[in-house]
Amino acid sequence: MKLYTYFRSSAAYRVRIALNLKGLEYESLPRHLTRGGGEHRHGDYLSVNPQGLIPLLIDGDATIAQSLAIIEYLEETHPEPPLLPRAPAERARARSLALAIACDIHPLNNLRVLDYLRTPLGHDTAVISEWYRHWIACGFGALEAEAARACNDQLHLVGSHVTLADVCLVPQMYNARRFECDLQPYPRLKRISAHLEELPAFAKAAPEAQPDAV
Amino acid sequence: MKLYTYFRSSAAYRVRIALNLKGLEYESLPRHLTRGGGEHRHGDYLSVNPQGLIPLLIDGDATIAQSLAIIEYLEETHPEPPLLPRAPAERARARSLALAIACDIHPLNNLRVLDYLRTPLGHDTAVISEWYRHWIACGFGALEAEAARACNDQLHLVGSHVTLADVCLVPQMYNARRFECDLQPYPRLKRISAHLEELPAFAKAAPEAQPDAV
Repeated sequence: MKLYTYFRSSAAYRVRIALNLKGLEYESLPRHLTRGGGEHRHGDYLSVNPQGLIPLLIDGDATIAQSLAIIEYLEETHPEPPLLPRAPAERARARSLALAIACDIHPLNNLRVLDYLRTPLGHDTAVISEWYRHWIACGFGALEAEAARACNDQLHLVGSHVTLADVCLVPQMYNARRFECDLQPYPRLKRISAHLEELPAFAKAAPEAQPDAV
Repeated sequence: MKLYTYFRSSAAYRVRIALNLKGLEYESLPRHLTRGGGEHRHGDYLSVNPQGLIPLLIDGDATIAQSLAIIEYLEETHPEPPLLPRAPAERARARSLALAIACDIHPLNNLRVLDYLRTPLGHDTAVISEWYRHWIACGFGALEAEAARACNDQLHLVGSHVTLADVCLVPQMYNARRFECDLQPYPRLKRISAHLEELPAFAKAAPEAQPDAV
């Protein structure tokens, strides 16, 4: 398998974690998201991925964009170890918490959105940082409340095994720390993330451990 | 089943389409997203859904937030007719196009984001409409390119049957028309959506057909 990736892309980070958890070898094809106007916007990449975003997985004839679609594909083609629980309601819960991050936090803080706030909207770094922290606070507030009432072992978002929800949490926590968000209101998320970050599959997927890290 | 919904919420619209396609009866529990500061932000609703967003499905003991998690749950518990193809690569493709809408277009144009652009950021309706159309253009441009190279019958985004991708496309097209986006550059999306909107399951799910429509 080949993965178009960027060390700091949190969507790519999710896929790297999933690949590592499944014990799958892959070739990294780094694309720098800021250099040269964004290497993911160049024609040669758009011919491979018309969506023009990172990550992209290539597995034989299959070319798959969107991190959660990639991870569901890995789950179906390499079921062990599972990243979704067995019961439909529990699977739904893991997907729901993953989507609370992938739809309700991350897209708002994506590089292209921050760029738009700067140009054409004309906002400065202070306003943009406030924007960033606002959506983290909304999303993490909801997730912390979910973690408080979920049936889990306090080391995972759902149940007592790593799920898709955990795979999304760690990269989002990484981003939140990078933008110096106040994480005190989220003790459960901090505890869960701290536990997960120690696991080899997560550690090996971290931005600073990537060949393209700068 | 009970569905917390709002006639104009495009995430709820997706779930209504899926329920109709599966032939499932449900009770509508409307929550008005602007009246009273947003009925989804009231304490009684937050106690049911800590994520504080619409839609939410209740099926017996299961309470599921996030439209795509709900639809995957329906797919697992009521497999016929399927909303995902059979082969993993094709399933991934349907999910990828659904997520291109659910992650890369819709969250940026959500009501709470437009509200934030107005207050505290201070933008007027013209700037906010331009923001809206910008993300529609980015996302639909990518989807149109995907539809052009996809293996499909020109009436569906993937293959020759309704999939999760189509379920996401129609509500996003509805939103785009509502904000008077220029849809000329997307002939394939227009043709696919026009076909789908005629189908009874889609027509019955449309905003104007809902009991809470105003």
